[in-house]
Amino acid sequence: MTNDRTNDRTDDGTEQRSEQRLVYLSGGVGGARLAHGLNRLLAPQQLTCIVNTGDDFAHWGLQISPDLDTMMYTLADVADEERGWGLAGETFAALEWVKRYGGPSWFGLGDRDLATHLMRTEWLRSGLDLTEVTQRLCSGLGVAARLLPMTNEPCATMIDTPSGTLDFQRWLVAERGLPPVTRVWSRGTDQPSAQVLAALDTAQLVIIGPSNPYVSIDPILALQGVRERLAQRPVLAVSPIVHGRAIKGPLAGMLETLGAHGQRSASARSVAQHYGALLDVCVVERGDEREFAHDLERPKVFAADTWMRTRADSRSLAQSVLTLATELGYWA
Amino acid sequence: MTNDRTNDRTDDGTEQRSEQRLVYLSGGVGGARLAHGLNRLLAPQQLTCIVNTGDDFAHWGLQISPDLDTMMYTLADVADEERGWGLAGETFAALEWVKRYGGPSWFGLGDRDLATHLMRTEWLRSGLDLTEVTQRLCSGLGVAARLLPMTNEPCATMIDTPSGTLDFQRWLVAERGLPPVTRVWSRGTDQPSAQVLAALDTAQLVIIGPSNPYVSIDPILALQGVRERLAQRPVLAVSPIVHGRAIKGPLAGMLETLGAHGQRSASARSVAQHYGALLDVCVVERGDEREFAHDLERPKVFAADTWMRTRADSRSLAQSVLTLATELGYWA
Repeated sequence: MTNDRTNDRTDDGTEQRSEQRLVYLSGGVGGARLAHGLNRLLAPQQLTCIVNTGDDFAHWGLQISPDLDTMMYTLADVADEERGWGLAGETFAALEWVKRYGGPSWFGLGDRDLATHLMRTEWLRSGLDLTEVTQRLCSGLGVAARLLPMTNEPCATMIDTPSGTLDFQRWLVAERGLPPVTRVWSRGTDQPSAQVLAALDTAQLVIIGPSNPYVSIDPILALQGVRERLAQRPVLAVSPIVHGRAIKGPLAGMLETLGAHGQRSASARSVAQHYGALLDVCVVERGDEREFAHDLERPKVFAADTWMRTRADSRSLAQSVLTLATELGYWA
Repeated sequence: MTNDRTNDRTDDGTEQRSEQRLVYLSGGVGGARLAHGLNRLLAPQQLTCIVNTGDDFAHWGLQISPDLDTMMYTLADVADEERGWGLAGETFAALEWVKRYGGPSWFGLGDRDLATHLMRTEWLRSGLDLTEVTQRLCSGLGVAARLLPMTNEPCATMIDTPSGTLDFQRWLVAERGLPPVTRVWSRGTDQPSAQVLAALDTAQLVIIGPSNPYVSIDPILALQGVRERLAQRPVLAVSPIVHGRAIKGPLAGMLETLGAHGQRSASARSVAQHYGALLDVCVVERGDEREFAHDLERPKVFAADTWMRTRADSRSLAQSVLTLATELGYWA
């Protein structure tokens, strides 16, 4: 494994760079891929990832945090990249046995993944908060970058459909994301953790990962004090839409039904419009910058190779983003 | 699989026999082996097993009932007979991952076994009692005989040692049963379940399995109303001691330190003395009946092949016991 992280113990000026702090907002898979690239390029103390917990839910009596787990597994290089969730080389013996008992089997919990949820649930029950539990799990897997759940309190993303309101996982997994979405909203706390606010307060730069704005990023932005802090520092987003399509997940359909008036299409521009004045810079797939040709100045739009198929792609995109941020004066 | 259970739908007199009810008191492995034999020979509605729950404990936030599980897995023909606990062909992927997180790994929970504990814990939390949960789990594994936890409330077997008091599993598994035992006692309820009392009320015969009297059978006998009901019907015990040794587990050492005055030896006779006037009949390994040569009449002692190495041994011992009970007029 190559380690090209900035070494902050040298005395040649690198130290100053390593004091820069970057906050990265993320959901699951797409966001985790760019995080992997950033994690390779930055010193551990430079990178804080604030992760959506709106998808969190209880299953088999266990507390499950899908986006935190995807981030953690990806940064630890143990994620199943092909399948897009869970651990590589995973087995499903417990799930098969749960089926024998007639227990709920619609959510695919692997055997090693179960260990994560068992320890999380047990440690939460013992009185640790989700931030502390996440730190412990990350330590176990050797993840040095800081992963922060957006909040320590329940905050569930709810999906309204024409036939009723569903929990996010019910809608995405059990209903396979098929029912049309008429509204996305949060049920629960609007308080971020103290660590989230402190990380934003000391950040030179905020990067919004190529995650679903509705169900991954908006839940973070909706927490009290987050938008205000983002307004005070440069914010760069990487579009999760590439040439009019979502790389993964239900975003394209959501943009078509939930997009602002006149922007109901799956496009990088719809994503940028969704974030609005919050964004200083939007990084889009090469060619997609043409969608913005007739727009006024905000946000600045830059093209890059954003489709991350490999770890090399992730690192390359992370490098492009950091270089761009440096050129714009946001990052030293 | 052969099925030589009594068919209660024939009209040739078998029907009358199938209305007989047998209650079987048991702990884990040894008791489960004889239960397997009895289950082969009796119709499902004839056999009710009352199972020790004094070993139950919480681990990884899950409710674990070792003796109930051993009984259930054995009757379902999915137990690991070699190892003496858990499921045959089990994997331990979750346990390995728990170790990465620094979680407790002293108790060997397999992946499929986890499904049992997850569903038990979830169903208990949903409001079912342990009797109902056990019935559901048994249904899932196709166990037709009735397994009853001795109680639905917590009742923990505690082990006093010269260096302090330990939970039973801590003593047996984490401490490998090594600290000398100065006393065994129960912490928790003294109330059996209503189903346990009802089963005893309608039993023609009670058989005490070849389980550890101190930590498997005494916890059942200590519950209110159990001894009184046993006094009103024939009680037959099968000795867990064979030629002065316990087939499995820590019983021999316990008999040596806990035996009644003058009986501090690992022998079938010490076991019979421990049960005292409760017993009508004691079935011992061939040759061990000589230990009782100079005793007065109670209990009646009979010799049989009690060491169950195979399923055929289990069935053969069950047949011997039922034949004996029939000859004594306890069973039709």
